[in-house]
Amino acid sequence: MEKRVFNLNAGPAILPEEVIKEAQEQLFTLPGAGMSILEMSHRSKKFDEILLSAKNGIKSLLDISDDYEILFLQGGASLQFSMVPLNLMPPKNKADYIVTGSWSKKAVKEAKRVGTVNIAASTESENFKRIPKPEEIKLDPDSAYVHFTSNNTIYGTQWHAEPQVGNLPLVCDASSDILFKKIDVSKYALIYAGAQKNIGPSGVVLVILRKDLLERSSDSLHTMLNYKTHVENNSLYNTPNTFGIYMIDLVAKHLVKKGGLDAMYKTNLEKAKLLYDCIDSSDGYYKGHAEKDSRSLMNVTFRLPSEELEKKFIDEVTKAGFVGLKGHRSVGGLRASIYNAFPLLGIQELVKFMIEFKAKNG
Amino acid sequence: MEKRVFNLNAGPAILPEEVIKEAQEQLFTLPGAGMSILEMSHRSKKFDEILLSAKNGIKSLLDISDDYEILFLQGGASLQFSMVPLNLMPPKNKADYIVTGSWSKKAVKEAKRVGTVNIAASTESENFKRIPKPEEIKLDPDSAYVHFTSNNTIYGTQWHAEPQVGNLPLVCDASSDILFKKIDVSKYALIYAGAQKNIGPSGVVLVILRKDLLERSSDSLHTMLNYKTHVENNSLYNTPNTFGIYMIDLVAKHLVKKGGLDAMYKTNLEKAKLLYDCIDSSDGYYKGHAEKDSRSLMNVTFRLPSEELEKKFIDEVTKAGFVGLKGHRSVGGLRASIYNAFPLLGIQELVKFMIEFKAKNG
Repeated sequence: MEKRVFNLNAGPAILPEEVIKEAQEQLFTLPGAGMSILEMSHRSKKFDEILLSAKNGIKSLLDISDDYEILFLQGGASLQFSMVPLNLMPPKNKADYIVTGSWSKKAVKEAKRVGTVNIAASTESENFKRIPKPEEIKLDPDSAYVHFTSNNTIYGTQWHAEPQVGNLPLVCDASSDILFKKIDVSKYALIYAGAQKNIGPSGVVLVILRKDLLERSSDSLHTMLNYKTHVENNSLYNTPNTFGIYMIDLVAKHLVKKGGLDAMYKTNLEKAKLLYDCIDSSDGYYKGHAEKDSRSLMNVTFRLPSEELEKKFIDEVTKAGFVGLKGHRSVGGLRASIYNAFPLLGIQELVKFMIEFKAKNG
Repeated sequence: MEKRVFNLNAGPAILPEEVIKEAQEQLFTLPGAGMSILEMSHRSKKFDEILLSAKNGIKSLLDISDDYEILFLQGGASLQFSMVPLNLMPPKNKADYIVTGSWSKKAVKEAKRVGTVNIAASTESENFKRIPKPEEIKLDPDSAYVHFTSNNTIYGTQWHAEPQVGNLPLVCDASSDILFKKIDVSKYALIYAGAQKNIGPSGVVLVILRKDLLERSSDSLHTMLNYKTHVENNSLYNTPNTFGIYMIDLVAKHLVKKGGLDAMYKTNLEKAKLLYDCIDSSDGYYKGHAEKDSRSLMNVTFRLPSEELEKKFIDEVTKAGFVGLKGHRSVGGLRASIYNAFPLLGIQELVKFMIEFKAKNG
């Protein structure tokens, strides 16, 4: 078998090896089905079981009450940037957006096509190196909802607690940190998350939606853009990404087996601490982009003393078997995406590499 | 290895065994990548190669000129029901729709949200048992485009030549027969097709779009609903269904290896003839739903003398190793979906079963 690298891609990203192996074993003939999951009708009893199991897996991992619907849709977070305001903004036609990075800005762009957007806070002037402080957030008390991005992949920042929004419905793009720990879903009106970081392969977006919000969705919306369509049809109005949902089911089962999200969070804290400690104890050789109290447990962004050294670092770290470390052009430097499935061993090896690289090129 | 059944599902549907085997072999570690295709960045060089190869595969199989763009999007044909009118109807804001089944009707429903729909022809009053005759089609010469559904999965009817539309742009939902033979793409302005019948797994929709149409797409459209977004970003504006595109690439290569679409068409003709001959030589025991000159090569719909016998047929045929034969409730009876990947041997076995069933229950 070909050697696998340490995959630090920002997304699509590393998945648990056990899950990929299981999917591989079952790909030609799904046990009891006589065919591949790739060939199975989305209207079959067997697929119904998979869909239900995937929904229940997410519900149980996040302890989600029956007040919420779990949907598996297509079009990624990018289509949710439109679906959220189209469904939830009326009749007030205004909403608060907290802007903490490029993805928040993209969400704002689509919301503005639907109604008035109040930028409740933004850290753009500081190149999104931090999450806004509570006192910086200026909400409109008559807003239809408040939107925020829980983790900012590009900048390596993350909210460590939900923004305080009082009685306003809270909407979250959790694409890059969903399932990194158990959050209190009851604080949210709607959570959406592209699957391709912590949940599964790309091509599915998870939507967790409080049922009372559905009354806002107008019948004049295009059928596929209306949350009611997908709730009424249990994500089966049209053919969904069946393989993607199957993979989400496997990942959810795997997480349960590994001790659930509390265990996952413990490992995530440990992994991130190793890497941030390496940065912080490098006497400024490695410099984090994010301010300390805004640091992400999922994406660790840092720079080296020069762009030349950054290039050299990437060349050598790639040869050492790590891929995906090049930072996004908005920040430059390096980014290590260390999602749930990235192994502790990989972090230990990366830290060892970083210490040696500094010693040789300090 | 577990026995595989004869899969006659309408979609998601049977895929070539060789392709599933290849995908299975490569699932844990894609050769040269050090990771699974499921974990690979859509911005990586390796995925760029896969995407390009998939595009070129489709272009070459259908002999598509450089006047067209090939896109791999999400949301299925159902989202295209909206994207087509949103992008192509302005500024005229009216379009012709030829209605030959449930899917055409769904397309009409979304188009009416955008502008005026002229039903150029419909065979609904005859439960869609045939394709309209040329003289029945009443086009508006000032229409933005003419929309039709090339194959009607539920009713088992298929257009054997494109509708004559003069200079009007022709738009086709080819979800259930794309790649069944080589069509002349230059006759079309836009073709869209959900992948889950002849192209690959579910969760990708192929869009073949004549470039000059892009000038109709308004910048006021939601970003994800604008064809320009996806053309300008080579289907990579956001994370696509990377695994689905990889599978399409494998299927396209497989079709080339098998002799391309002319060879495929020859086999499809042979397969359908066997089944229709069995129906026609049954002295009315098996009765096709579709009129003879509208019969589909992809979906063969037929009834038995009574619903009781139909139930018995399904029970016994399932035990004999065939799945997916229950017809859609709009037509009742049986439906055999015999897409490209369904083997000739399976048809021969099914015909044998049908002859024996009639002999025992005639």
